[in-house]
Amino acid sequence: MPDPWFDKAAILGVGLIGGSLGLALRERGLAGRVSAYSRTAATRRLAVDRGAADEAPDSPQACVAGADLVYLAPPVATIVPLLAQVLPALRDDCLITDAGSSKREIVDGAEALDLGGRGFVGGHPMAGSESMGIEHARGDLFEGMSYVLTPTERTRPEALAAARALATAVGSTVYQMSPERHDSAVAAVSHLPHLAAVALMMVTQRRHESGQPVYDLTAGGWASGTRVAAGGARLWRDILASNRAAVLAALADGDRALAELKRLLAEGRDDELEALLETVRESKLAHPGR
Amino acid sequence: MPDPWFDKAAILGVGLIGGSLGLALRERGLAGRVSAYSRTAATRRLAVDRGAADEAPDSPQACVAGADLVYLAPPVATIVPLLAQVLPALRDDCLITDAGSSKREIVDGAEALDLGGRGFVGGHPMAGSESMGIEHARGDLFEGMSYVLTPTERTRPEALAAARALATAVGSTVYQMSPERHDSAVAAVSHLPHLAAVALMMVTQRRHESGQPVYDLTAGGWASGTRVAAGGARLWRDILASNRAAVLAALADGDRALAELKRLLAEGRDDELEALLETVRESKLAHPGR
Repeated sequence: MPDPWFDKAAILGVGLIGGSLGLALRERGLAGRVSAYSRTAATRRLAVDRGAADEAPDSPQACVAGADLVYLAPPVATIVPLLAQVLPALRDDCLITDAGSSKREIVDGAEALDLGGRGFVGGHPMAGSESMGIEHARGDLFEGMSYVLTPTERTRPEALAAARALATAVGSTVYQMSPERHDSAVAAVSHLPHLAAVALMMVTQRRHESGQPVYDLTAGGWASGTRVAAGGARLWRDILASNRAAVLAALADGDRALAELKRLLAEGRDDELEALLETVRESKLAHPGR
Repeated sequence: MPDPWFDKAAILGVGLIGGSLGLALRERGLAGRVSAYSRTAATRRLAVDRGAADEAPDSPQACVAGADLVYLAPPVATIVPLLAQVLPALRDDCLITDAGSSKREIVDGAEALDLGGRGFVGGHPMAGSESMGIEHARGDLFEGMSYVLTPTERTRPEALAAARALATAVGSTVYQMSPERHDSAVAAVSHLPHLAAVALMMVTQRRHESGQPVYDLTAGGWASGTRVAAGGARLWRDILASNRAAVLAALADGDRALAELKRLLAEGRDDELEALLETVRESKLAHPGR
């Protein structure tokens, strides 16, 4: 697969992901010019100062004008409205892709628009972090990460090929699956872990308020188990809301797992508990995660 | 508070904690001699090879003979039986302390023995890790960590003072509380996070078995949320069993927190969800944990 080349890449939304994509495109020489847009003037300036973009015009229409790559990386809830807004200003043959953490709503919304000859491919670089914003952007953020693409039967093959080439060129491993399959899997391995961290914080906070010395006694298990609860509230509200049904299904799975652990412990079935802990330990050692 | 000095420190159980204590005592010159005991010959050799002990005799009685510090760091379930076993061989005036992750059962068990003039102080250095064993021992393991001591009305004041001096001398911050208060707090900030990690692994494993591409899509949130599930199954079975009632209470708190999140999400109360995420985020930023 050849490295992709874009004459002009337009990045709408330059937070951690959009900013990192700009840096990666420029550092790896994958685009003739990178144009970035953010609603916030300070972010636009920072995108240029940090080298994530050559220019950062103050309207999304100016940003996308003449671009052959339009990369949508604003908050999940604004991806489709922003695409609708810039649609009249897009080049006829551009590749449009997004970086939203859930896919069904976004892909449905994008495909409901009249895109003409332009190709849209839903995408999700699994590189988010509680360290948000252009300040934390890095050109190597995508290296070694999973990058999911979610084509449908309406996706143009040449757009999919270009999106695959882009994700590969920034260092990611590409996985391709339906939006539904993506949303169900990330509900289990991303959205549920987030809610678990939030729930652990809620328990800690309430114990603290009732006078228990919980914060004095936190150690490594607590620190890593609650790490992602430092993530942005608005960001996570939108992600969870945009994947509501799949997240509720994952929560039900989590409930069942906790109920099983509780039953073993309450009934003194310690041998079974140990066997379960050992199974899980082996899975974790086999899949430490990235 | 003066640094403590022990003529001979006997460490029973030289895993991560016992081994690290031996290294800390020797590196900081806090003991004239460190003697270590493990049931496993290879571990005894490794304790000496790694510099965690001057000697490692092949019986616990030989290890404790003449010691003025007896440090019990074997698996939780064996602490009291091992103390009972070596009791006849102990010096009349030694300090006895342990490193068990739960305290009520251990303190009750130790205080039920006839300790004569010897002082027992329950302790818990909050420095455990899924990286177990003497191989991972480090002389600086206790630095900056919380070290809980759980005296009761039966604890001898001079023993408590010596245990405090020891924990401080290895670099920890000492917290003092009743065994019950300790057990309830660690159930919330250590044992519940462990079960949450196990439950997340159970969900992932089951989704994987049903053919979902979950392991391909794991990212940072999953990796940190499940990190401690790599911990030893036997070790954690014993910890959870020794703190059963407090762990079940913490699980009930966890259930309530998850049910609240589920209700907000299911009912579309996204503003309230966001407000809750923000509260939790602020708590986490204020208490990142150690």
